[in-house]
Order: sequence, then C-alpha cells, then structure tokens
Amino acid sequence: MLTIEDYQRIIKEKIDNRPFDCKPAELYDPINYTMKLGGKRLRPTLTLLACDIFDGNVDEAINAALGLETFHNFTLLHDDIMDKAPIRRGEPTVYKKWDANRAILSGDTMMVLAYDYLLNSPKDLLFDLFTVFNKVGKEVCEGQQFDMNFETAETVSIEEYLEMIRLKTAVLIGGSLRVGSIIARVSPEQSELIYDFGENIGMAFQLQDDLLDAFGDSSVFGKQTGGDIKTNKKTYLYLKALDLANTEDYKRLKYLYTITDEDNQDKIDEVLQLFNQYKISELTRNLMEEYYDKAMKHLNKIPLIDSKQKVLVDLADTLMKRDN
Amino acid sequence: MLTIEDYQRIIKEKIDNRPFDCKPAELYDPINYTMKLGGKRLRPTLTLLACDIFDGNVDEAINAALGLETFHNFTLLHDDIMDKAPIRRGEPTVYKKWDANRAILSGDTMMVLAYDYLLNSPKDLLFDLFTVFNKVGKEVCEGQQFDMNFETAETVSIEEYLEMIRLKTAVLIGGSLRVGSIIARVSPEQSELIYDFGENIGMAFQLQDDLLDAFGDSSVFGKQTGGDIKTNKKTYLYLKALDLANTEDYKRLKYLYTITDEDNQDKIDEVLQLFNQYKISELTRNLMEEYYDKAMKHLNKIPLIDSKQKVLVDLADTLMKRDN
Repeated sequence: MLTIEDYQRIIKEKIDNRPFDCKPAELYDPINYTMKLGGKRLRPTLTLLACDIFDGNVDEAINAALGLETFHNFTLLHDDIMDKAPIRRGEPTVYKKWDANRAILSGDTMMVLAYDYLLNSPKDLLFDLFTVFNKVGKEVCEGQQFDMNFETAETVSIEEYLEMIRLKTAVLIGGSLRVGSIIARVSPEQSELIYDFGENIGMAFQLQDDLLDAFGDSSVFGKQTGGDIKTNKKTYLYLKALDLANTEDYKRLKYLYTITDEDNQDKIDEVLQLFNQYKISELTRNLMEEYYDKAMKHLNKIPLIDSKQKVLVDLADTLMKRDN
Repeated sequence: MLTIEDYQRIIKEKIDNRPFDCKPAELYDPINYTMKLGGKRLRPTLTLLACDIFDGNVDEAINAALGLETFHNFTLLHDDIMDKAPIRRGEPTVYKKWDANRAILSGDTMMVLAYDYLLNSPKDLLFDLFTVFNKVGKEVCEGQQFDMNFETAETVSIEEYLEMIRLKTAVLIGGSLRVGSIIARVSPEQSELIYDFGENIGMAFQLQDDLLDAFGDSSVFGKQTGGDIKTNKKTYLYLKALDLANTEDYKRLKYLYTITDEDNQDKIDEVLQLFNQYKISELTRNLMEEYYDKAMKHLNKIPLIDSKQKVLVDLADTLMKRDN
C-alpha cells in the first residue's frame, strides 16, 4: 500500500502536468491558478486511500479524486468572494487578483470540470458516484448559507453550529472516502461506515481548526492567531463560552463580539482570557474526542487487517493535530 | 404526438408542483423564485419534443428536461450578477431582490440540482447524457466569458461574435434536443444531426434577438427597443455596420458607442439610421436564413415522417419570429 505522501504526490503531479489548455484564457487562467495553489490535497488523498484500503484499483479512482479536489477548490473560490477574503494559501484570491465576475464564472466552470473528472470513472458506478457527489454538493452549499446566516444572526445554538460545520466541512471529508470505497466496489454497508468514520473525523478536524485559530499551535512558530475572534465569528468556542458564562461575563463577551476594529489586540486577549476561565480549550478537546471515538466505532465495524486500519487511525490522528 | 404547448404545460406543472422544500430557506427561496419566474421553457420543451419525435418514452425525458431548465436558469442567475441586471422577466433579479452572495450560492446549488435531475434518467444512458451536459456547460461558461471580454475589447471580429453566441446560446439549444434524442435511444449519427439542427436554429434565434432588440417587433405593442445600443453592446448589427461603413460613418459609429448616457434617444436614433443606411436588418436576416438553411439540411438527413419533420420546421419558424 502507498503512503499518504505518495497519494499527495500523485495528485500534485496530475494537476501540475495537466493544466486546462482551453480558451478563453480569461476563464481558464484563474482555474489553473487555483488548482496549482496547492494545500494538503486532503480530499483526493482520502479518495485514493479509501480505494486502496478496500483493495480497489487506485488508477480507477484518480479521476474521481481530481473531481473532488476541483469541487473543493470551486467552493473556496466562491466562498472567498462571499467572505471578501483577500488571501488564500498565502496568495491573492481569484476575486482579488482578478475580479468578482472572473471568480464567479471560473468557479462555475470548475464545478462542471469536477463533474467531468468524475464522469471518467468506471461507467457502471456512475449512478452511485454522482448520487454521493450531488448530495455532498448540495450540503456544502447549505452549510455555506448557514455560515453566512450566522454572521448576522442574533443567537446561534451549539447544535446549529455543529450542523453547519457538518454540512460545510465534514460531509465532504466523509464523501471523499465514500467515493473511493465505491470505486473499490465495497458493499453499501461498508461504504456507509467509511463515510461515517470520515464525517466524524471531519467534525473533529473543524473543531481543531477553530481551536488552533484561537490558541495557535506551539509547533508552528509565529503563526498568527485570533482571526475568528477579530471577525466575531460565532465558533464552538464562543458559543460554548456564552453557554457557560455567568451573567456578567456573558454580557461582556457579547459586547466584545460587537467590536469590529480588527487591530484590537486587547479585545482578543480579553476573549481568550474568558475562554480560559471557562476551560473552553479543554471542553473543545473533549468534544473532539467524542467525535474521534464515534469515528473509531464506525471504523471498528469495517473488517480490515490491522495494518490497513492503522493507516486510517494514523490519518485521523494527523488530522486532529494538523499544523495548518 | 403532443404539441409544444403541451410540453410547456407539463414542464410548468412539474416546476410549480415541486418546489424545493429544503433548508436553509435563505438558499432555496431564491431558487424557487427563479424557477417559477417562467419564460418560454424553451430548452426543456426541446428535450421532450426531440424524445417524442424519435418515438422515445417522454416520461423518461422529463427529469433531464427539468435539469436543462434548471441549468439555464442557473446561468441567468449568475449572468445577472455579472451584468448587474436589475430586472429579468419583469421581476427583480435575485441579485437585486436579495444580494450578490445569495445569488452566487443559490446559483451554485441550482447547478447541483440540475445534475441531480439529470441523474434521474435511465441509468444506462448516464454516461452519454452527462457527456453532453458537461460539454454544453463548459461552452456556455466560455461563451459568457467571451461576452464579458468583448465589453472592453477594442475590436471584435464578426467571426468572434458568432462564435460567442454559438457558445453562449446555440449549443444549449442543440444540446437540449440532443439530450432528448439520446433518451429516445437514437443512433449517435441522428443525435448529432438533431444537435446540428438545433445549434444552427440557435444561431438564427440569437440573431433574431439582436435584431428585435434594435428594431423592435411590430407584433408586440410598446416593447422598448435599443437596449443593446444603449449599453454599447457589440452585436452582429454593430459589427456588420462597422465592417461596411465608410471612414466617416465608421468613426461616427465608433464614437456613438463610447457614449454611456443610457437616456440618450438621439444616439439610438442616429445608430439606427446608420444601421438602415447600410441595410443591416436585411443583412442580418440574410445571415439568419443561412443558418436556417443549414439547420434544414441537417434536418433533412434525419429519416422522419413528414408530420414529425413539420413539427421541427414549425418550431424553427416560431423561434425565428418569436415575440420575446
């Protein structure tokens, strides 16, 4: 079996060696730019990994993997317009480098290209693959809309927040694994189990992301923290703190999250102090562990030899301690 | 065989009786609003018609027809953001009624919904159907980008303009017919012929649209004209006039198309006078006839009984004299 680094390399080579050489350049330049920007290539890696774990033909899964990576990049491209985000992976976003119209249309084209990759999967599996892809596609859009709704919502419950990150992030993690398992032609039951494993790991992964955004990662020197606090994002950390806070702290935290001055370090420090006071880090890690345990329960139901199960456990561990 | 009005009614009923009842409402309200706004339902009608003409099971084509209508409406929704269009079919556009973010994301979701409709076609045809759909999808995006490029381009050739309208409009007309023919399980050759018929009719249809925009339609009382002239759109009419104009008129026309004051009736009148001077209406109609003749050549190669061929000829005639 190949390693995760092998899969990442395969995906990178495919993307780098096969830019879209179509016209007009105004449409395809932003697409090639986005695809080459990189990132961890997590989703396509999961597809190849799942196919391999289940003894499938990994060559048959490469196009579907590229489809998932293209879909993911399309969502980032459109999210960056909606969020007015100037930087992604250290480079200007398409919306900033070109303009919103170019970002809308090249994103639209990427969605078609994603389906086009997926279409190059084994023909007898197309119905099952497109069914997963469409479901995940709709859910990711729904998650993004909930996320936007929450920006202006007066109150957001913890349950609503968790459902939002499930839709926006976790279903695509689960879906990427499911697609790989379908190409390996496993039973629907095993396909469901690997999806459930992935969805739960995806939840832990996003909570870890929220935690690192607030508190940083000691292994990454000089990484900036507090982005979510600056922008008053109602993450699990904030919602849990509100949930536990006494009346005075509740009011203070609510007030702090009305400040829109992004250079206000005092605000960030005070929010972090409140988070510490209510042991928010620990509680978030506890919730991550709950999702991790659920993921492992699903994983344990899949009949896999130890060495293959270990690959998935290692992957889950890596994702939960990831450094970016 | 059913009539075109029957197909339109079937499509309308399906759309009106099956709104997307999903959450969040912020995402699905603009989708239901857009789908119900109506229009001629030309593309899905063509799909049902083609399936019926080729003795296919029309029930099997309904989902693909709805997929094409959903895809078409998605493109309008995103085009309206890019073009900053406030009104569509007499009602505020999604971008105006809500905002650009809602229009981007509900459009994205509509593209997934389009693929989801298409997926409910006969399973053994999915590869062929998605192949057509993806090709058309990419081409429509390419056409829209060329259209945007032309807004700021110093010069656009007639050839480039015709290729742009082919991509932006004609391929979806052809594709809608092709999808219906595939569901009727015709040979690839016949499927290609009906596509070619549709693409050429689509070209004539768009040129007719450009012509009506400038000169209006005597059958439609009080319809406003001159929209393309107001916005300096480089249509076939304008490009052909430039092509034929003497040096003085060339310069004048070029100058008139730098005026951005949209309430300038004198400008519109002067442009129309120049168009008349160079017999642009007649020349446009000639070009439309060329496309019509090409369409008929393809149609005549398809072995159809006279009554069925007549349905397609009538359709083509209707499209070329359409009143909106």
